[in-house]
Amino acid sequence: MNSAASEPALIGVDWGTSSLRAFLIGAEGEVIDGVSSPEGIMQVSGKCFEAVLDRLIGPWVAQTALPILASGMITSRNGWVETPYAAMPLGADDLAQALKSLEVANGTLVHFVTGASTEHAGGPDVMRGEETQIIGASSLGLNDGTFVMPGTHSKWVQVVDRRIVDFSTYMTGEVFAALKGHTILGTLMEGDDVSEEAFEMGVTAGLEGGANLLHNLFHVRTLPLMGKIPKGSTADYMSGLLIGTEVAAATRGARGAGTLTIVGRSDLSDRYERALQTAGLECRRAPDDIAAKGHFLIARAAGLLG
Amino acid sequence: MNSAASEPALIGVDWGTSSLRAFLIGAEGEVIDGVSSPEGIMQVSGKCFEAVLDRLIGPWVAQTALPILASGMITSRNGWVETPYAAMPLGADDLAQALKSLEVANGTLVHFVTGASTEHAGGPDVMRGEETQIIGASSLGLNDGTFVMPGTHSKWVQVVDRRIVDFSTYMTGEVFAALKGHTILGTLMEGDDVSEEAFEMGVTAGLEGGANLLHNLFHVRTLPLMGKIPKGSTADYMSGLLIGTEVAAATRGARGAGTLTIVGRSDLSDRYERALQTAGLECRRAPDDIAAKGHFLIARAAGLLG
Repeated sequence: MNSAASEPALIGVDWGTSSLRAFLIGAEGEVIDGVSSPEGIMQVSGKCFEAVLDRLIGPWVAQTALPILASGMITSRNGWVETPYAAMPLGADDLAQALKSLEVANGTLVHFVTGASTEHAGGPDVMRGEETQIIGASSLGLNDGTFVMPGTHSKWVQVVDRRIVDFSTYMTGEVFAALKGHTILGTLMEGDDVSEEAFEMGVTAGLEGGANLLHNLFHVRTLPLMGKIPKGSTADYMSGLLIGTEVAAATRGARGAGTLTIVGRSDLSDRYERALQTAGLECRRAPDDIAAKGHFLIARAAGLLG
Repeated sequence: MNSAASEPALIGVDWGTSSLRAFLIGAEGEVIDGVSSPEGIMQVSGKCFEAVLDRLIGPWVAQTALPILASGMITSRNGWVETPYAAMPLGADDLAQALKSLEVANGTLVHFVTGASTEHAGGPDVMRGEETQIIGASSLGLNDGTFVMPGTHSKWVQVVDRRIVDFSTYMTGEVFAALKGHTILGTLMEGDDVSEEAFEMGVTAGLEGGANLLHNLFHVRTLPLMGKIPKGSTADYMSGLLIGTEVAAATRGARGAGTLTIVGRSDLSDRYERALQTAGLECRRAPDDIAAKGHFLIARAAGLLG
């Protein structure tokens, strides 16, 4: 609890597949209080979302009814209220106009922020939740450029003048886990040394590997076989190879233009920062709680802050 | 048993990780009899390889001692006799000179055919067993060109004048299995319709996808989400995407030059043939039992046929 904070004005909920975070947000957009839970939408049995929300934000709404904004996979087919994807370009105003509202038991309104879709030559792309974070980040002096969001499915998001104009998803994190857990590459990994050198070798191989990923993955087996990297370092080599391949693909041509901003404070974000540096690309880090900032901006654009 | 065959002259054993095949080979190189077993090197407990071999080829050696040639993962670290990799270029003579022999209990000699290694910019590549098949195939009027060997780890092998001059491994098959079995892509696959149309769509996306595989895999999720391919066809789409990506990488520039020959008679080989056709590349199919032909040629070059 921040004693210098203004009066509570809004509750923001970032409700994903495997976890949720809720924020008590003040009239100036500051985060007064926060709570997190492993109760992602896939962990809530029988779609009893309202009960989970009541319990988590109960302490905040005991005396006063606050508007609630919810973003993330909670608006997907397996979520609470399914909403159609919004099209590019997409700013706080557009998301405010697309809010879908539901009155819950105590008369409170829950306003759902929808996700976004785009279309490239190869096929469609979608996000739910990241658009709210990017809208939040884009208000913090980060108006333009490319936002890199490391994760199971990483997103590269192009922003022009506080509006999302395009984005691409990369399955890098999930591919890494599947290969490590369920192929000969993982079977042969010994120990769990952390090797920055092997990671950097992998990044370089990925940056230079072009379209050869399915071949280059075999080097995760042959390099230790030939004594060229220690057996304990192969996981880090593979992590670097995959992230380097992603960075090369995502920054080719006009994509990845402008200032690069990494979203997130995890070890994975640190790996992406090192890979971008190895690629000769400068980047900065987005502040925490940008989802709450996004909830605030969208709520304000929707006239929900009284 | 082929009644027109000549006298038995050799036993060839193609002993891999998950299975083995043994051939009774005549003085003209023809296969007189064959036996196969699921007793690959990883299934033989306590490295009791001699007992397994005795049982399988016992009926052939009851009356006469025949030289035995063994190729494949049986010469790897987890096999019977570990042999060093031979370097490129590699023909029957080279493999004959590199044979490593072991006398087993009844006085019979087992001659081990070693594997091959090569080195590209990105790292080393290795094979054990495929070199013998390719030497066999290269004697059957298939002296030159590129051999495509679909499998868990597919190999693309360049042959010039009956010698292997280079090769590359692609982890495509194992990547497909890991993604289907252990990611959200597999979780969302419904039914198991066989869809040639979805496979072809995937092949085209892979051929055109360049370095974007980690992104393009996400389309396995978004295309059915947007109703662009049936949910039951996503496995075939992903199979096509991965094989198309491999074909594009393996035939870029000077690689994959000359006539293309597909080795193998499996459903997977049929998929590769369709993908090569979609890429506008002509190909032919290698005959069966080329491993036995390779054993014969290497044994003859080593003077083992009396």
